[in-house]
Amino acid sequence: MTRPDYYKFLSSRANLIEPSPIREMVSKIAVKSKTRQVISFAAGEPDPDVIPRELYAELSSELFKKVRIIGNYSPADGVIDLKNEIAGFMKEFEGVSTNPENIVVTLGGSQAIDLIGRLLLDPGDMVLTENPSYVNTLLVWKHYGVQIKGIPMDDHGLIPEELDKTLSKLSKEGKRVKLLYTISTGQNPSGLTLAQERRKHVLEIASKYDILVVEDTAYNHLLYEPIEVKTLRSMDKEGRVIYVGSFSKVLGTGLRIGWLEGPLEIVEKAKMAKGPMDMCPPVPMQYLVLEVLRNKVFKHVKERAIETYRLKRDLMINAIEKYLPGIKYTRPVAGMFVLIWLPRNIEAAQFTEILLEKYDVAAIPATPFYTDESGRNVVRLNFSMAKTDLIDEGIRRIGELLKELTT
Amino acid sequence: MTRPDYYKFLSSRANLIEPSPIREMVSKIAVKSKTRQVISFAAGEPDPDVIPRELYAELSSELFKKVRIIGNYSPADGVIDLKNEIAGFMKEFEGVSTNPENIVVTLGGSQAIDLIGRLLLDPGDMVLTENPSYVNTLLVWKHYGVQIKGIPMDDHGLIPEELDKTLSKLSKEGKRVKLLYTISTGQNPSGLTLAQERRKHVLEIASKYDILVVEDTAYNHLLYEPIEVKTLRSMDKEGRVIYVGSFSKVLGTGLRIGWLEGPLEIVEKAKMAKGPMDMCPPVPMQYLVLEVLRNKVFKHVKERAIETYRLKRDLMINAIEKYLPGIKYTRPVAGMFVLIWLPRNIEAAQFTEILLEKYDVAAIPATPFYTDESGRNVVRLNFSMAKTDLIDEGIRRIGELLKELTT
Repeated sequence: MTRPDYYKFLSSRANLIEPSPIREMVSKIAVKSKTRQVISFAAGEPDPDVIPRELYAELSSELFKKVRIIGNYSPADGVIDLKNEIAGFMKEFEGVSTNPENIVVTLGGSQAIDLIGRLLLDPGDMVLTENPSYVNTLLVWKHYGVQIKGIPMDDHGLIPEELDKTLSKLSKEGKRVKLLYTISTGQNPSGLTLAQERRKHVLEIASKYDILVVEDTAYNHLLYEPIEVKTLRSMDKEGRVIYVGSFSKVLGTGLRIGWLEGPLEIVEKAKMAKGPMDMCPPVPMQYLVLEVLRNKVFKHVKERAIETYRLKRDLMINAIEKYLPGIKYTRPVAGMFVLIWLPRNIEAAQFTEILLEKYDVAAIPATPFYTDESGRNVVRLNFSMAKTDLIDEGIRRIGELLKELTT
Repeated sequence: MTRPDYYKFLSSRANLIEPSPIREMVSKIAVKSKTRQVISFAAGEPDPDVIPRELYAELSSELFKKVRIIGNYSPADGVIDLKNEIAGFMKEFEGVSTNPENIVVTLGGSQAIDLIGRLLLDPGDMVLTENPSYVNTLLVWKHYGVQIKGIPMDDHGLIPEELDKTLSKLSKEGKRVKLLYTISTGQNPSGLTLAQERRKHVLEIASKYDILVVEDTAYNHLLYEPIEVKTLRSMDKEGRVIYVGSFSKVLGTGLRIGWLEGPLEIVEKAKMAKGPMDMCPPVPMQYLVLEVLRNKVFKHVKERAIETYRLKRDLMINAIEKYLPGIKYTRPVAGMFVLIWLPRNIEAAQFTEILLEKYDVAAIPATPFYTDESGRNVVRLNFSMAKTDLIDEGIRRIGELLKELTT
């Protein structure tokens, strides 16, 4: 009776599968929250009270009764009526003309990103991202053995000149860059939005160096200012942009309905891959989102979300101005996050640990979102899920700890 | 304005992603069904009228109102209460003692199988399956570049002596076999069940050659005869069996709730991988299944399914005896399928095409389920989703076509 030596059975890819660097922090927060009231700026999620659960209760009850095949498989790429609605949604909300054939419904935007890895990324390939970028995209693409290089951002998002410079350098070195990944609006973790005037430039650079662009639009519908930002996809005349869509940040992350949209050459492969991977997206969830889109409810939920989160954002910014004078931080016009820069000698990982331990405030170090060492002193603060009446107090405590550590 | 040459961007793995060989047939059936009443033996799914949709309507309405965080993320490996219930379920229905820590909730059994590929399979590795085996498992593991070898079956399922012989041969050739994949009960596509007295032997062989066993239990709960079949997992003393569980075949394939259970060394890696792959299984679906398990409804749904499908199976077998005298076929004690062997000179693919075209009867060639050429004349018939009052007529028409082709 010998137990097998499991490590011997693991694939070489398994070595590339790393634990999420923020998982430990998340566990600590969960443990602490059991005994103390924690003010949390940790999550990257919608406020549960903004999600229209009463409406979902009603709709899902109707749908289970009405749709005979709701408990059975749908096509692997999604219910055709939903794909039609998504095409209409992209037209209405994103100015993108596309066809249902170009759409694959996925388990949130995350699965679309993983699918892109499976279809496009080989070991040794290089991928460019904003620096910092979404930690889970970095993690999941590392499963495919790629190298990831971050491009610096400023207040207006990704810096096109830096992108050009990097691509030029890599091209000279003979490195194969396949794509640029950008969360163009309300980026996670920075909260920054790529300025409209830069967007055309980014597309031109992609064309110049013949790379694809993966545009993650997760936060596109949480725009707090009356500014114009067009999706890269809507401006793309060459078919370089693969669009990753998600209803998660407005309708709820738990539903797990997102999609991949792009050129047929890639989408057809995605459909082929997806069938045996998981058969289809959860069918009752597909019908629920279909009904929400059909009933034109999305816009109302979105407006309520924007109103709620704009208020929370303002509370957070005001509190930062009040309690953290002189600190460097981002001012989001969209999304769910603010970054703050601690003094250079303070490590964000340590800071957030003490903050939780001593001050009952939860935040996530932004460090693992960086592709290099430049984010050691940066902390990500979420405002969407934070409790309105505790934001001021939470930031005050951050100020307290900062004072404690710097004096 | 040049469109990119997309094929240049595809990964080397993308070449391993093949279209499902039964996809074309499925499309043809869908098209035909629009204009004609097709008698279908094609699907591999529960009867929509067995799925308790009224109950789901009620439960999901309650859950959306009651569970505040139902629209938000759950842990990547699933809601902890659901994992507890699944551990209890495995004890009650499968005689397996395990812990919630050893469980990862997945998007149906399919995702568990894909996850096993990601964690364990390297290009060039060899995987053994029953011959024939589930076509989607073959397809998705091919994404990982593995070689698949099928082990012959007889009426009692996989033949242990053949397994031993194959492993001995491969071992002498220096080939690395990582695992045996078995759908031990009510196998898809054969309908066969691995005889209880063979199960111990299969485990001994796995131990002898130091390979793992992936036991796909999708059809375990659809057992039509009062025979004893223990899961390999429950008999495994060494920790060689990775268990793939699914509620799909009883509660509905559309919910997409399955799980992976196994040794911590592998399950921990699965948890790490799964987070960034898709964040979490759909949360309302997790709570729905949780309620079904908590309310002890599973057993009732299962009993109703068994009663319905047993009747359909008997109708199918009787019709085969009546209209296809002398034909070789499998007699399932579990699952959803019967295989029939056409005369050697008739190709199943062609036969099923004419059958649909001329006789309005849909069936799936079993050929792509085989790992070699031996299944060219084999057709898979599903009885679970077939309409009770049309089974006899459908098989009669198969008999008609056979007569037409052989006289």
